[in-house]
Amino acid sequence: MKNGNLIVISGFSGAGKGTVVKRLVKDYGYSLSVSATTRAPREGEVDGKDYYFKTTDEFRNLIDYNGFIEWAQYVDNYYGTPRKFVEEEMAKGNDVILEIETQGAMNVKRQYPDALLIFITATDAKALRERLAGRGTESEEVIDKRMKRAAEEADYMEQYEYIVINDDLDRCVQTVHSIILSKSCERERNIDFIETTKRELKGN
Amino acid sequence: MKNGNLIVISGFSGAGKGTVVKRLVKDYGYSLSVSATTRAPREGEVDGKDYYFKTTDEFRNLIDYNGFIEWAQYVDNYYGTPRKFVEEEMAKGNDVILEIETQGAMNVKRQYPDALLIFITATDAKALRERLAGRGTESEEVIDKRMKRAAEEADYMEQYEYIVINDDLDRCVQTVHSIILSKSCERERNIDFIETTKRELKGN
Repeated sequence: MKNGNLIVISGFSGAGKGTVVKRLVKDYGYSLSVSATTRAPREGEVDGKDYYFKTTDEFRNLIDYNGFIEWAQYVDNYYGTPRKFVEEEMAKGNDVILEIETQGAMNVKRQYPDALLIFITATDAKALRERLAGRGTESEEVIDKRMKRAAEEADYMEQYEYIVINDDLDRCVQTVHSIILSKSCERERNIDFIETTKRELKGN
Repeated sequence: MKNGNLIVISGFSGAGKGTVVKRLVKDYGYSLSVSATTRAPREGEVDGKDYYFKTTDEFRNLIDYNGFIEWAQYVDNYYGTPRKFVEEEMAKGNDVILEIETQGAMNVKRQYPDALLIFITATDAKALRERLAGRGTESEEVIDKRMKRAAEEADYMEQYEYIVINDDLDRCVQTVHSIILSKSCERERNIDFIETTKRELKGN
């Protein structure tokens, strides 16, 4: 059986990538990788659904046992993508989505050169700031910090194979699904098929 | 306004590309280029719908006036893709499909490096022969000739960016549509957008 695709989705905070990913899982049945973290659960977060919540010792132990595809430390907390789930799902032929930061995405690409990297963005910087402000729950300071973080992440955009503008949720979800569907038809993934077809036809 | 995409669809005789193209036009509203030819109309063929039927003099005159994007001579007949329709549709922002032979496709790609080349194929050589035989209308000799032609065309497969297997019509049509949809999100087509976003965010 053909292995499933590994799909890495990143994007600016405020570009709505979380919602896009949820819809991809719901509408099209993609497998979603759940990250592990040492940060404390926020209200309403469920262990094993939002994150796997780990102690720092547990997390470090998993690092030692090669338990993560990628991991990183932000401020005082660890975040990582558990290897087992991803590899098992792909072996079953299921397409797996990782929703991770740009740095993590680069690490994944190094280990899995076939991974499909998709970056979700707003129409422009103005729209991004409006969306961050629009939540109404954040202070100017937090918004500025997020915009600064977005500027850092933007440097990685050109490492992504596809850039999808999320100005319409339905269309954005459909476009990302289309990108994944079309992937398996790329010439580069069908070199063996082309060679076999040529051989069969010449022998006919 | 953004120009429409130029989509070139080729494939083996018997792989069902004609049906796929008809469905793409019907289901998704793509603009379809109608070829010009000097061969005589077959029963039921309508001028301007199946082909533009031209005399050899008319056709040669159009060649002299740069009226074709690509043209070729097969056996005693000329075939060509009228330039005007394609360029006008693209300028209107419409995606245009050309259903043409491999050699014509190579000519188009040289003139329009952004053209999207898609090759439609059957599951394998055996399935192709069965489909050709299955029509029941062709002699062994004609089938052999088509298979020989397929072997020649197979040499061009690796020049196509996407290879789509037509083992299920609905899925094939949906896959080709997905490939076209995803095209505009490719990194290579968004270099300017990435640069603008970076600049805007740094200035924020």
